[in-house]
Amino acid sequence: MVRHRGNKEERQQALRRYLRSNPFATDEELAEKFEVSVPTIRLDRLALGIPEVRERIMAMAQEARSRMRGVTAEELVGELVELQPGVMGISILEITPPMLVQPAGVARGYYLFAQAHSLALATVGAEVVLTSSARVRYRRPVYAGERVVARAMVKVVKDSTCLVSVHSRVNGEIVFKGQYIIITPDAATGGGSA
Amino acid sequence: MVRHRGNKEERQQALRRYLRSNPFATDEELAEKFEVSVPTIRLDRLALGIPEVRERIMAMAQEARSRMRGVTAEELVGELVELQPGVMGISILEITPPMLVQPAGVARGYYLFAQAHSLALATVGAEVVLTSSARVRYRRPVYAGERVVARAMVKVVKDSTCLVSVHSRVNGEIVFKGQYIIITPDAATGGGSA
Repeated sequence: MVRHRGNKEERQQALRRYLRSNPFATDEELAEKFEVSVPTIRLDRLALGIPEVRERIMAMAQEARSRMRGVTAEELVGELVELQPGVMGISILEITPPMLVQPAGVARGYYLFAQAHSLALATVGAEVVLTSSARVRYRRPVYAGERVVARAMVKVVKDSTCLVSVHSRVNGEIVFKGQYIIITPDAATGGGSA
Repeated sequence: MVRHRGNKEERQQALRRYLRSNPFATDEELAEKFEVSVPTIRLDRLALGIPEVRERIMAMAQEARSRMRGVTAEELVGELVELQPGVMGISILEITPPMLVQPAGVARGYYLFAQAHSLALATVGAEVVLTSSARVRYRRPVYAGERVVARAMVKVVKDSTCLVSVHSRVNGEIVFKGQYIIITPDAATGGGSA
């Protein structure tokens, strides 16, 4: 929680800074963070010339998608919003009703796996990518309507093998962690799956 | 490969024995195994009163599904064909074009994960099941038209935590192995995802 209710100018500067490192925050999340109403956040964005979250994501997504290798947009689970092939990638998955366990209302874990896995493959940035193994940890259940922001980082590259680490967060809180060993099989001899 | 081309009686007895431990073998797989044509296998089955693989699976599936807890048929990736809650479960996933990576024609690895994961959850047999962590290994790519038979075994149960091991095979060959730590949260305190 950031306390800026009192001073509009100060709050707007803080908002601009905050959005630079959290570009996928929704107005609702920002309102909670800055302890103001959603209409106040909208006015602040208008004053600062910052478009709403959907537009910010769409603009980033278009550029990120043009850099994808080895994974098509249809294969990717979630929406790619940032990609530096061989370095890092970010995707967002909105939890919708078909992904939920009934009656508990929490997302089936394999959706988080698929988001992280497909992002890890895209982040490697090779034309052909095979998965050798993965280790994942679920930190807390994810609920309907939550937006899962996954960030993949290429940690180690050795010959044709990459270790990609993925952290998935809801509103800044880690909900899932995964490590994927991915092979770019131009030089590979072993097994693996796409 | 089993050599029974010469003696019909002998081959039919061997076929009956083989199907007892491999009830999900297709006529094509059996023909290859016994070095005879597919029509010969069909005649052998007719003589033995053994229905074709789809019917065998459907009959088992109906019974298995009635024992499912914690996972619905829609949530299960693949078709459940055997289930002893708390002990073991088997499901079959047919690899269809939407699961493939183009142009390589191999299945995206997260489908194998989802099949094994949802089967592991069903095998635990509790009303509410959460996943804490998983370790998986991909042994070889899986291709269009292949049938992946996953077998889950509950290996360890301690308080509210289960270790479920899943081996997935195509035509007897292991293509994927997974270990899932699953919590039945009536007694749980930690995180996890459904």
